[in-house]
Amino acid sequence: MTDPLVIFTPSGKRGRVPHGTTVLEAARKLGVDLDSVCGGRGICSKCQVTPGTGQFPKHGVTVSADALSPFNAVEQRYDEKRGLKPGRRLGCQAQILSDVVLDVPPESQLHRQVVRKAAEARTVDMDPATRLYFVEVAEPDMHAPTGDLERLNAALAAQWDLPPAHAPLPVLARLQKALRAGQWQVTVALHQGHADGPAQILDIWPGFFDGPIYGMAIDLGSTTIAAHLTDLATGAVVASAGVMNPQIRFGEDLMSRVSHAMMNPDGAEEMTVAVRGALDDLARAIAQEGGIDAAAILEATLVCNPVMHHLALGIDPVELGQAPFALATSDAVNLSAADLGLGALNPAAKVYVLPLIAGHVGADAAAVALSEAPEKSDDLVLIVDVGTNAEIILGDRSRVLACSSPTGPAFEGAQISSGQRAAPGAIERVRIDPETKEPRFRVIGCDLWSDEDGFEQAVGTTGVTGICGSGIIEAVAEMRMAGLVDAGGLIGSAAQTGTSRCTPEGRTHSYVLHDGTDDGGPLVTVTQGDIRAIQLAKSALYAGARLLMDRRGVDRVDRVVLAGAFGAHISPLHAMVLGMIPDVPVDRVRSAGNAAGTGARIALCSRAARRLIEGNVRRIEKVETAVEPRFQDHFVAANALPHASDPFPELAKIAPLPQVDFNTGGSPRRRRR
Amino acid sequence: MTDPLVIFTPSGKRGRVPHGTTVLEAARKLGVDLDSVCGGRGICSKCQVTPGTGQFPKHGVTVSADALSPFNAVEQRYDEKRGLKPGRRLGCQAQILSDVVLDVPPESQLHRQVVRKAAEARTVDMDPATRLYFVEVAEPDMHAPTGDLERLNAALAAQWDLPPAHAPLPVLARLQKALRAGQWQVTVALHQGHADGPAQILDIWPGFFDGPIYGMAIDLGSTTIAAHLTDLATGAVVASAGVMNPQIRFGEDLMSRVSHAMMNPDGAEEMTVAVRGALDDLARAIAQEGGIDAAAILEATLVCNPVMHHLALGIDPVELGQAPFALATSDAVNLSAADLGLGALNPAAKVYVLPLIAGHVGADAAAVALSEAPEKSDDLVLIVDVGTNAEIILGDRSRVLACSSPTGPAFEGAQISSGQRAAPGAIERVRIDPETKEPRFRVIGCDLWSDEDGFEQAVGTTGVTGICGSGIIEAVAEMRMAGLVDAGGLIGSAAQTGTSRCTPEGRTHSYVLHDGTDDGGPLVTVTQGDIRAIQLAKSALYAGARLLMDRRGVDRVDRVVLAGAFGAHISPLHAMVLGMIPDVPVDRVRSAGNAAGTGARIALCSRAARRLIEGNVRRIEKVETAVEPRFQDHFVAANALPHASDPFPELAKIAPLPQVDFNTGGSPRRRRR
Repeated sequence: MTDPLVIFTPSGKRGRVPHGTTVLEAARKLGVDLDSVCGGRGICSKCQVTPGTGQFPKHGVTVSADALSPFNAVEQRYDEKRGLKPGRRLGCQAQILSDVVLDVPPESQLHRQVVRKAAEARTVDMDPATRLYFVEVAEPDMHAPTGDLERLNAALAAQWDLPPAHAPLPVLARLQKALRAGQWQVTVALHQGHADGPAQILDIWPGFFDGPIYGMAIDLGSTTIAAHLTDLATGAVVASAGVMNPQIRFGEDLMSRVSHAMMNPDGAEEMTVAVRGALDDLARAIAQEGGIDAAAILEATLVCNPVMHHLALGIDPVELGQAPFALATSDAVNLSAADLGLGALNPAAKVYVLPLIAGHVGADAAAVALSEAPEKSDDLVLIVDVGTNAEIILGDRSRVLACSSPTGPAFEGAQISSGQRAAPGAIERVRIDPETKEPRFRVIGCDLWSDEDGFEQAVGTTGVTGICGSGIIEAVAEMRMAGLVDAGGLIGSAAQTGTSRCTPEGRTHSYVLHDGTDDGGPLVTVTQGDIRAIQLAKSALYAGARLLMDRRGVDRVDRVVLAGAFGAHISPLHAMVLGMIPDVPVDRVRSAGNAAGTGARIALCSRAARRLIEGNVRRIEKVETAVEPRFQDHFVAANALPHASDPFPELAKIAPLPQVDFNTGGSPRRRRR
Repeated sequence: MTDPLVIFTPSGKRGRVPHGTTVLEAARKLGVDLDSVCGGRGICSKCQVTPGTGQFPKHGVTVSADALSPFNAVEQRYDEKRGLKPGRRLGCQAQILSDVVLDVPPESQLHRQVVRKAAEARTVDMDPATRLYFVEVAEPDMHAPTGDLERLNAALAAQWDLPPAHAPLPVLARLQKALRAGQWQVTVALHQGHADGPAQILDIWPGFFDGPIYGMAIDLGSTTIAAHLTDLATGAVVASAGVMNPQIRFGEDLMSRVSHAMMNPDGAEEMTVAVRGALDDLARAIAQEGGIDAAAILEATLVCNPVMHHLALGIDPVELGQAPFALATSDAVNLSAADLGLGALNPAAKVYVLPLIAGHVGADAAAVALSEAPEKSDDLVLIVDVGTNAEIILGDRSRVLACSSPTGPAFEGAQISSGQRAAPGAIERVRIDPETKEPRFRVIGCDLWSDEDGFEQAVGTTGVTGICGSGIIEAVAEMRMAGLVDAGGLIGSAAQTGTSRCTPEGRTHSYVLHDGTDDGGPLVTVTQGDIRAIQLAKSALYAGARLLMDRRGVDRVDRVVLAGAFGAHISPLHAMVLGMIPDVPVDRVRSAGNAAGTGARIALCSRAARRLIEGNVRRIEKVETAVEPRFQDHFVAANALPHASDPFPELAKIAPLPQVDFNTGGSPRRRRR
């Protein structure tokens, strides 16, 4: 009699197996992705399948109703206790008796795909460094004495085909009790993160333990630290939390923190202590947010810029403050959470720090590259992660280049006269009527525009307090579109613009966006100084992008991705009016949200992704803007709105800019020298 | 022209190399063991050779005076600065121009042999896990940005053919300063101890650093902790030190410590804290003793019995107190010194814990096996390490067996009426005249026998305080030989023995060894209870050995090795009179000194030795005495002095024992039941 044919869907994998083979065995034999934590003991129920019956012309088989062995006692007990969905069978119990078609539902797939909520649906296969394994361990035999750990390792080898694992001392200290409490059955959390080292047992539970276990993806920024608590089996984000980076008290931007380290003997150490404390607090907060015990967090991934990276690792960042911007280490770093003083996590928890690209282009940029995968793009994509420093990546399948550019904090609302952080009360959207020159705006925390009925009431409690980063960008761009600002960045006078909102301020002019002084509120204006600050920032950003385009030998890109929390709030049209980014069709500008955080989460869920980015950062061509003579030329040319020389044809199609020039003789501009 | 022929002595390795090849290159090419720390830069002077000239009929060559290139500037500078021995050349500088014979002096051999001071001169090739490497590291290039660590690893690969090493965070934090201080030349201490993991950089020095770096071989006993500070380049012992094991306050012997752990919730932890503190203190003490900075200690090896092992590692030893005596782990353990709280050593120092053989046969026995190498013995050797527990190993090239036997502390002078630890004032040697039955003895701290002139004066300060382990063994054996004790272990009365030194004590008799009561000193006697205690201890020891002989199918062994500090003080003849060990020619009984400590030192000096013992402990056949029915039979039969049934022909040849029997009707012996 021919062996029965078994066909698995959706994979389509098929083959013949001996009569009586269990579904789980057949899946393993045929390389079908069917999960199992208990190793086929009818405990975990991870290996559920749905058998089909009847005709399957596509597969050329007819499946009889008794193709699988009848429900056995294990399945019945499981069904009574926990309930099996109709039609489902336990793969480790059901035996294949004749030709059969078996569907593996998504929740039974070990390497199930995590669908991302991005415009293009990219997926990540679950392949975390830390996984649970249930094993039955041989009891000790005094006539053949070996250690409990050695017998556990023998069980992992026999039942899971795993190489010997190490146990840190605190885990080893709990091993004997766990084995006896579980009657020689235990579940271990095994970490296989290092390509060049042995696996480690991070935790151990008596008997069968189904999890969940968690990882924490950390995006450590200069200003804020954000984290996602992630289920290590499913990849689902269970909770998110953020805290301010306490290093801010040592300096707002990166270079002021490097200076603090250079000027003070214990400066670097102070900042290390501060940021590690914040990371530990964040772990506690996110565990509370997710309603879990922080000891269930077995892993973390960390992305950050090079200065944050060195300070977190306890390395003086002084070399990053001067050419040649030498990193202490650029490769990915595998650590114990204890090395970073993260006492909130599981005592044996591991930390994976993504690799750095260059002295100014950090693990955050690497994470963006991992998330956005420019090396897989068919068209030429420019990825811009805007922060105090902008990281810029340009590439496609053939080549990927990267640089960073010192934009300064203007895009975050700092160094702006009415600027503030993005918080309730901050103006975030601005529209100016090109005819009346009158503005309307929206503030964070209120859905109404300022000219809509009930706005005053709706913003009542907070009021209008200032203008945030995306607000100032829209305000300046709208002023340019409404003819209130010329291509050189000069604000016109009331006479030149025809609106009394343009008021003199010294030798320059300001534009009054909102006057709340009658109600004791602020006067929110856009000053000439604000425009200059935005011009400096956007020139740096554009010049960096242009430098990469030079290297690549192109003068246009196919699409632009705005990464970073800030990028999510930038209006593509307004960014292009300002000339922050090169000219492309506006529908080819996309926000990727917190791509660095997404990259950290991908690295948490996938060892393959770690290996991928470790290889890719080496292949990325690095451009050091600080010493590129052409950077200065590009910077000067990019000062105009949108640009002094580069054409912006796509922008012209949708938003022709008024040809105004407020630079008269004896202008304030000349005096600025 | 034929390439010149080069012959290295003493290895005899020979081959032809291109004209102009340096001696160091030639050595590497021909696999000659020629040291070099600086990698051929004329800095370290480790590669010195002595060229021969003239006729070498044995090698078939004639060496001309200009076979090597003339002294070059590097050699001249070195000679002026540090002085080169006459006739010596630097191997990295001298080029081979014609046929030459080169002698590699012992100090230029990397894997130089450490000759042990044992009876048979065994040697250990230096192959430590931690070694110094000098490298020249490429300077950072901002146009090809990589981390300093990555460039250091590239240098290690290019200049030393080493795989990438990891750097713990504290070392990484010092890397950049060291590289710049050393002008891109540094020396690193690289640890390559784990077979299955990457190398680690334990320390880093700017420029060329010649050491010395040290390791600490620790023998952690129940009573005392001993350590040898060892130069990791030469294997030389620089200092030795010992402390009492502070766990003694929780129990004198192993089982009382296990009980303490079982009876007290924090009992095991208390003992862990105590022993780790003692190890750390010992590290400080030995560094001071050796006149070195303890931070220069980069490695330690640890040997101990299973209970000490578990307590040192922070594992509750409760399972070791009951069958099946399950170990938490039996394999060798690789740790960081920090894991054990050893803060005195270098912060990145490593600890290698030797493997355990069985639940009662520890890493100390494994170290003895490593030191004594029974698996390489042509004749059948019985190795006995006497302590509170005796570890017994029997074997030769074909098979090795091991067991442990609970001898109790009698051999250490405990549970003996006048017993004391081996310290000044303790009687350690005893002779009893067979005619007069009068004793003479020696005490620790005095070279004179008690019947020699000036003895009273010589022992003046301490006096005679008691009797130590080796003293009680000799006393009982001498009493047996003098006819004061019969084969059953009974002390005769004054009437039976003819000496008034045999005094009644209850229903039994005691023998007065020394009466110091006139001077306010102690009355040192050997009581019937003392003899019983020694009988119990020696029966356990002999029964263990006999059990291994049964397994092996032999009733005699070829030789006996007494290991342990105590073994060094036991007189072979007296041990055989007592029947502690099987009958062999007395000149075939040898003391191996502290073989466990020697094993720890071998493991410190040689990675190959670590691999060897890791393999050997698996092959050793373990016999669990606690559950062997025959053990009890052997134990009972071994109660007699020397033995109830086993013949002792070799003993009879040199010391025929008097046929006395003091067991009359109504003897005290019967009452003992």
